[in-house]
Amino acid sequence: MTVQSDSTSEALRPRRTVAEPARHRGYAQHTWQVSTSKEVSYEVVLSPGLLDPSNSTLATAGGPAGARSGRRLVVVDATVHRLYGARISAYFAHQAVEHEICVVDAHESVKSMDTVFEIVASMDAFGISRRREPVIAIGGGVLTDLVGLAASLYRRSTPYMRVPTTLIGMVDAAIGAKTGVNFRRHKNRLGTYHPSAVTLIDREFLRTLTPRHLRNGIAEILKMALVKDAALFEHLEAHGPRLVDERMQSAGSSDGAGVAEEVVARAIGGMLEELQPNLWEHELQRLVDFGHSFSPAIEMTALPELLHGEAVCIDMAFSAVLAHRRRLLDRGDLTRILRVMDRLELPAWHPVCTPELMAGGLADTVKHRDGKQLLPLPDGIGRVRFVNDVSRTEVDAALDMLVDLRGGADVPAMTSGKRGA
Amino acid sequence: MTVQSDSTSEALRPRRTVAEPARHRGYAQHTWQVSTSKEVSYEVVLSPGLLDPSNSTLATAGGPAGARSGRRLVVVDATVHRLYGARISAYFAHQAVEHEICVVDAHESVKSMDTVFEIVASMDAFGISRRREPVIAIGGGVLTDLVGLAASLYRRSTPYMRVPTTLIGMVDAAIGAKTGVNFRRHKNRLGTYHPSAVTLIDREFLRTLTPRHLRNGIAEILKMALVKDAALFEHLEAHGPRLVDERMQSAGSSDGAGVAEEVVARAIGGMLEELQPNLWEHELQRLVDFGHSFSPAIEMTALPELLHGEAVCIDMAFSAVLAHRRRLLDRGDLTRILRVMDRLELPAWHPVCTPELMAGGLADTVKHRDGKQLLPLPDGIGRVRFVNDVSRTEVDAALDMLVDLRGGADVPAMTSGKRGA
Repeated sequence: MTVQSDSTSEALRPRRTVAEPARHRGYAQHTWQVSTSKEVSYEVVLSPGLLDPSNSTLATAGGPAGARSGRRLVVVDATVHRLYGARISAYFAHQAVEHEICVVDAHESVKSMDTVFEIVASMDAFGISRRREPVIAIGGGVLTDLVGLAASLYRRSTPYMRVPTTLIGMVDAAIGAKTGVNFRRHKNRLGTYHPSAVTLIDREFLRTLTPRHLRNGIAEILKMALVKDAALFEHLEAHGPRLVDERMQSAGSSDGAGVAEEVVARAIGGMLEELQPNLWEHELQRLVDFGHSFSPAIEMTALPELLHGEAVCIDMAFSAVLAHRRRLLDRGDLTRILRVMDRLELPAWHPVCTPELMAGGLADTVKHRDGKQLLPLPDGIGRVRFVNDVSRTEVDAALDMLVDLRGGADVPAMTSGKRGA
Repeated sequence: MTVQSDSTSEALRPRRTVAEPARHRGYAQHTWQVSTSKEVSYEVVLSPGLLDPSNSTLATAGGPAGARSGRRLVVVDATVHRLYGARISAYFAHQAVEHEICVVDAHESVKSMDTVFEIVASMDAFGISRRREPVIAIGGGVLTDLVGLAASLYRRSTPYMRVPTTLIGMVDAAIGAKTGVNFRRHKNRLGTYHPSAVTLIDREFLRTLTPRHLRNGIAEILKMALVKDAALFEHLEAHGPRLVDERMQSAGSSDGAGVAEEVVARAIGGMLEELQPNLWEHELQRLVDFGHSFSPAIEMTALPELLHGEAVCIDMAFSAVLAHRRRLLDRGDLTRILRVMDRLELPAWHPVCTPELMAGGLADTVKHRDGKQLLPLPDGIGRVRFVNDVSRTEVDAALDMLVDLRGGADVPAMTSGKRGA
């Protein structure tokens, strides 16, 4: 008996069909092999003016082509609701879209399956159509991760759209495929790969973001610069502090978009280039893991003191020193990297960074990478080399050097509160 | 800016890359399109003698090729633990596999995310390796659905293996891609598509299944027969009751496997043929939905009185009458179908089947099928035609006819208790 198939809309790959009975230690076996492939396609769009009542993009994107459902469930976090709730309601009303706004708390501490259940319950209550009415998530990375997981699980997958309102969401959390919640103190222990049909990015939301949260996003942009885009690094060198001051609105050019748009676009494009061929992380040697080898331990230990991007920045500084000690990065480039961090008021060190923490963090990461370090180190600026043989002695020496270079510097003030009025 | 990619182990499809800025109602947009495909491949194996201590299949299947991890987490339901727990432990001990047995309650009433959390907690406690140590699920359809969802969510997907111990698991629940839990009285409202790397089928487990639960599985075999395999129908006609009496062990042939193996193999092969090109149900016109249009309403209304396969059987009988009234099925074939159900002591009718319930059930199903009935009706035996225009009058008339034909017959005794000693 063989597994055959007719042609349908589901794309099929050539497949092996094992039809011959095999023998295994004396037992006759009969095997079917099912082989298929799932097409995944999604869009990330720089899309200004999203809440302009005359702009139909947000009301129609992600719905059936040509059709306009007229119904949308909108899930927002409490901060977005406070700052933009009235404008969001007015927008959908003007677009004649029947809508419901579901407000959830979305902090790291409530990034749990219970919050996913809240979202699922509002999907049920709204009576969402499984194929025609994408759920719209508007908020930071925690919110879009939660809605993504709810949409992924609801009827075994329902379409959704993401509108990130933080810079880290725009260049990182809301443009990949990962969803997730924390489980029993493990960060993102449960989740799925389920990208939104469309991610709409409107930098206007950044006008209300605090400088600290802007810098948190710039840390992930700096990551993309260091691993593969020297020109992006030069933009951060030349314009970094001004981009923060101007909240990533137009800066330094006459065409109305200018450097801020270019910086965001390069970071997104670079990230998507890395994600596309490895969306499900079958390949564990990932450029985008730069800054994410020691930082989970740093972030969880310092919690709630450090934001994600801040912990990533410390990891990048430490990795740069490791690279310098291996002669992958000359002193001039190391200094440039640390100076950019400094001018952006991003931390390059933190008191929790003991040798034990750094070595333990690396050991944890090895478990995630199937037994190998696969540690990305800067090989000059804009390139990475993966190494697998960093020793404890080397970790200790690099940390000493980082403390010498940066340990004495003031740790940037970590004001709390995500947004201004 | 375009999304490019280098070649990696992740298979890539040709993709459109939208790089030109577009304009939407006056706003300049910049779009990236991420297009990729995920290869999915899994095996279903008829694999006798699984618990024979000298047979290494269960200890090694699904692990890294050539390697033998030596560690396995085994999740079983309480009934399997009672009947087979000692043999399972002895098996892994003999195979020198370090193992832990996690026992969970797995009934429809506890098919919930809380039970998934129990399984996740035992995966954490076992310190399971994400890539090398597939979780082994041994049990009925509820158990394999629960373990499948836990494995799907854990670190955004962990491999697992299924060993179905019920007939309905062997021919249906444990060979597809669906996982799921109930949520707030909605059946399988939350779930994923995550097939196990390998499903191992050993009919010996059926020796301890009650006749009623065997018939429950035969109902799904009858479904496959009616939609696409007239020869399989003839096997059920000729050997049905004896297959039940002999617990699907060898029957009617001299080669030691015989009809029982052929019946199971044809049902599995037919099912996989249907699933492979449509594993994620993008196509909503599905042969395998035969018997699953009215039955969710019947099953949930009669709960806990009817088993899943019993409700499916009533749906099939009703659909056969609908088909007969449309002259798709002649009287002789209708009689053959009802006689097979009767001889198998499967119900063709139940007192909950009012005209309102049947019409309401169809309306619910239309919501799941994106606004269309897409109702599969038998077009002779072994073929199906999809219709979209069944009226309420037609439902009423068909139900009257079914009641005349079968309503007076004794409803088969529905003894509870899943297994014997």
